[in-house]
Amino acid sequence: MGQYRFSGYFYHMENLTHLRTTFLEHLKNRIVEQEPTGLYGPVHYILDLGGKRLRPLLTLMAAHMYKAPMSQAMDAALAVEVFHNFTLLHDDIMDAAHLRRGKETVHVKWNQNTGILSGDAMLIMSYKLLETYEPAVFKPLMILFSRTALQVCEGQQHDVDFETRTDVTVAQYLHMISYKTSVLVGCALQMGAIVASASPQEQERIYAYGLNLGIAFQLMDDYLDAYGDPETFGKEVGGDIRENKKTYLYLKSIENESYKQPLLDLFAMDHAGMSEEQIAAKKDAVKIIFKESGGVQKTLDAIDHYTQRALQNITTLAIDDNAKQQLKDFSLKLMSRDR
Amino acid sequence: MGQYRFSGYFYHMENLTHLRTTFLEHLKNRIVEQEPTGLYGPVHYILDLGGKRLRPLLTLMAAHMYKAPMSQAMDAALAVEVFHNFTLLHDDIMDAAHLRRGKETVHVKWNQNTGILSGDAMLIMSYKLLETYEPAVFKPLMILFSRTALQVCEGQQHDVDFETRTDVTVAQYLHMISYKTSVLVGCALQMGAIVASASPQEQERIYAYGLNLGIAFQLMDDYLDAYGDPETFGKEVGGDIRENKKTYLYLKSIENESYKQPLLDLFAMDHAGMSEEQIAAKKDAVKIIFKESGGVQKTLDAIDHYTQRALQNITTLAIDDNAKQQLKDFSLKLMSRDR
Repeated sequence: MGQYRFSGYFYHMENLTHLRTTFLEHLKNRIVEQEPTGLYGPVHYILDLGGKRLRPLLTLMAAHMYKAPMSQAMDAALAVEVFHNFTLLHDDIMDAAHLRRGKETVHVKWNQNTGILSGDAMLIMSYKLLETYEPAVFKPLMILFSRTALQVCEGQQHDVDFETRTDVTVAQYLHMISYKTSVLVGCALQMGAIVASASPQEQERIYAYGLNLGIAFQLMDDYLDAYGDPETFGKEVGGDIRENKKTYLYLKSIENESYKQPLLDLFAMDHAGMSEEQIAAKKDAVKIIFKESGGVQKTLDAIDHYTQRALQNITTLAIDDNAKQQLKDFSLKLMSRDR
Repeated sequence: MGQYRFSGYFYHMENLTHLRTTFLEHLKNRIVEQEPTGLYGPVHYILDLGGKRLRPLLTLMAAHMYKAPMSQAMDAALAVEVFHNFTLLHDDIMDAAHLRRGKETVHVKWNQNTGILSGDAMLIMSYKLLETYEPAVFKPLMILFSRTALQVCEGQQHDVDFETRTDVTVAQYLHMISYKTSVLVGCALQMGAIVASASPQEQERIYAYGLNLGIAFQLMDDYLDAYGDPETFGKEVGGDIRENKKTYLYLKSIENESYKQPLLDLFAMDHAGMSEEQIAAKKDAVKIIFKESGGVQKTLDAIDHYTQRALQNITTLAIDDNAKQQLKDFSLKLMSRDR
């Protein structure tokens, strides 16, 4: 692991692991143990749960592509990661989730009030991390960051609203996942570009790439939730079906009139009195209908569509061809189904 | 209500009402109805519940004393008010409070998840409101604001931790109320001074004034919680006693060994099986002990001590004598028991 790895395109596939390690060292140095432990203990806990750290890696990659030293983008990358984990913490309370990455969620391990307050502290900490940037860089970072953070809240609210609505359109769904998931991917990349003083036009282009990649990523998540490998998916396969979530798969499947009513019936089921065997049977039935109705194919087509748009965005960037190729490789690797 | 009121010291006592009205107009113009209403509805609701708006008024007053136009400080004042209401929203969830200013709390009127998410949005909105300031002003505002926000979270955590501790010292209690309440008063004033480009030394001095005033204010709140006029106090008189809260009154009363054990016993009572009559009897007993033990006198002395320190801070400020007198009048009015 020599220093030479930091010259050239250090973020090339085989070096992503190394980049992640460097990022995690930075996280460990910057997010130090503090009092009161009742407030900061859960912050360390959730940040140490692991994960692919994709968003901060994107910030570092973007900064590097625009010729800034990696070290300069570390705090921006960390701000994105702390913010992302803040959303996970509060979302887990709202979803009453018991597990996060195979471990107890904060509100289960501690209690709900701790989850709320430590989450609040994380949101503030993410802002504070940006204070290392000089005023002229700090302000555009903050404007982008706050806009994105508010959009993520709006996306979460739309997601909640959709639970009790039966008239959600595909366009509304795409808007929701854009806000809930994709804007932060775009933000992560653009923050790297801002740190590297890339032009506003370049910033917009790399943001657009992130937005499309994020949508493709979320649609893939919808697909994998139903059809993923239980060994590698990390969450309960069919969890969305259990919760009657109106994902892209569902919305595209009910477009086929022949399957609409059976699906509506299956998604109107109250699971209160059902056994796990009955829920498993429901999952199987839904998955067959998703396939037969053409919903699966349309979802795969949409994933491909947004992936292609992301790849197209790459071609517009004013970066080296070598960097473009590696960003393309990264995108395709991310979207490969065995990720 | 002619325009002439804005010349000279518009914030003089009789004009505070007018200043508040102007601030509320600004709030109404800046916090506009937005979609999704599930997210922003509760934000408007809690901001419209009323209150004295003391913190934003202090921001405006400080800006004016340092010769900045009031309009220039409006967004900073609003950021402070939105942040303050964010803390109320999340605190009400954590305290399972049903009423706020005589109206249903957000998590009761809507639900808990809405309370969490709308609170998150308010915290972000408070940051966004500062974006109107140019980078060189924006950054110091943000640094102060974030530091204060994190201290408020820490203060809240200490408050929670104290509930299950029996060894809280007076010094620890004062630290807790400083963080939970007073730092935001100091921050509100310093933000006004920053907007008006006051020197760092002046900023520190007006912050110190706010800190002392905030502590005096919170100690007065502890006193009024037990001995306030039920007609004007706005909250349940004796609420702290009902909840066995170890306030300054309590901590100073148990310093008197003769009354320590009876108080410890009264504050160890579980109210689960008690009637309202029994709780009222407990309140009366505690209030007698607070007085007899000397706890009340020590609390009143402490209020006076911190008020005097705040008044002393005023004398150090580089502002007109007229402004000093009016700040002094304001402080004394705030600390008068019939507020």
